[in-house]
Amino acid sequence: MGMLSGGLPTVVSIVGRKNSGKTTLIEGIIQELKKRGYRVGTIKHHSHDLELEDIDREGKDTYKHQLCGADAVVLSAPNKLMLFQIAKESQQIDDISRTYLQSMDIILTEGYKLEDKPKIEVFRRQIGGDEGLLCNQKDNNLVAVTSDCNFDLSIPCFGLDAYKDIADFIEQTVIQRVQPSKVSLMVNGKNIPLNGFVRSFMRETILGIIRSLRGVPENPKGIEIRLG
Amino acid sequence: MGMLSGGLPTVVSIVGRKNSGKTTLIEGIIQELKKRGYRVGTIKHHSHDLELEDIDREGKDTYKHQLCGADAVVLSAPNKLMLFQIAKESQQIDDISRTYLQSMDIILTEGYKLEDKPKIEVFRRQIGGDEGLLCNQKDNNLVAVTSDCNFDLSIPCFGLDAYKDIADFIEQTVIQRVQPSKVSLMVNGKNIPLNGFVRSFMRETILGIIRSLRGVPENPKGIEIRLG
Repeated sequence: MGMLSGGLPTVVSIVGRKNSGKTTLIEGIIQELKKRGYRVGTIKHHSHDLELEDIDREGKDTYKHQLCGADAVVLSAPNKLMLFQIAKESQQIDDISRTYLQSMDIILTEGYKLEDKPKIEVFRRQIGGDEGLLCNQKDNNLVAVTSDCNFDLSIPCFGLDAYKDIADFIEQTVIQRVQPSKVSLMVNGKNIPLNGFVRSFMRETILGIIRSLRGVPENPKGIEIRLG
Repeated sequence: MGMLSGGLPTVVSIVGRKNSGKTTLIEGIIQELKKRGYRVGTIKHHSHDLELEDIDREGKDTYKHQLCGADAVVLSAPNKLMLFQIAKESQQIDDISRTYLQSMDIILTEGYKLEDKPKIEVFRRQIGGDEGLLCNQKDNNLVAVTSDCNFDLSIPCFGLDAYKDIADFIEQTVIQRVQPSKVSLMVNGKNIPLNGFVRSFMRETILGIIRSLRGVPENPKGIEIRLG
């Protein structure tokens, strides 16, 4: 998926055993990142099917639309939009961010231990006991640990509520990473891999065409073209 | 917005006075369209701000993420995805479909009387009384009425539960309309209008480039290119 990650928000996955404190950590990091002006999205992974009752309230119109078989239901209000979308299987982080979270600066996920994204593990002695970290210490995606124990690791280990330090770390280490690619092509909903030559050829051709159009700024960014 | 509507799903708005039966009609149409194999999305318009309690349940992690200030929260399960997105103002139908409902064939909206979309008005004698239709009969977007009264109109008038006939009408009249344009360009999140020459020039240039790429089918459709 690396080739597509160019235009997508930065992702940090918060992983750890059940009840280790993932949600609490995410709450703390959201608040810190919001203070710094970032648009923050979150993705919570739920491994079992959701019942309609779990996600919408009986009697409401959106509930009724779903009950009748709508594939996607949106409730749009001035201050908030809510979407329910039927899925065939769990979607990957990049698919979710491409479709729903493109306007975010950073995405924190709760779970998704097995995806190829930078991870911070929450470890609490009371939960983890003597079993050690959930992540393999050789996992290059494990970038930090937050814990009430001392670990002897080559990566930073923060206190469980050191939200400010963790947000600093995320800002300096993860958000700043250079993004590898800046062109993506989807045809019929499928990603078409592009090699370096094609990528730069497409980029320059398209920039050449659109630069002369009225309304296009001098250094256009975030360009999106759709052909139906 | 016409210029952008090329790649977007067909929209039909179900309008009518409060308690006239909009949701019941939508439920009936959803079931008919699903039988016919369409992917159906719905958008419900809510004119007042939603409180967090209206849309998510206290104590749940997604609720907590929102409470801490996340701008967008996704809950992803194998069978369903749920998104909560903070908004600054009510979004227009085309913006909602472009961002969230591109994979649908048809979108039914509940409300949105003032938008420039084909509309079906639900009129019940008990609610509308002698006041007549809510929509102006000269509104070219009013394509049909469903009612327990007889109206003398130049457009079709269906019974309140004639879901099959209404679905036939939607299929034959609205879905079949020729879509005016097939190329859209967004730069920095803003739509750049394209005239006919530029549109066809961009289309042919891009098709020319991508046709030779491995993995691209002979008649590529639904092409999406992003430059970051």
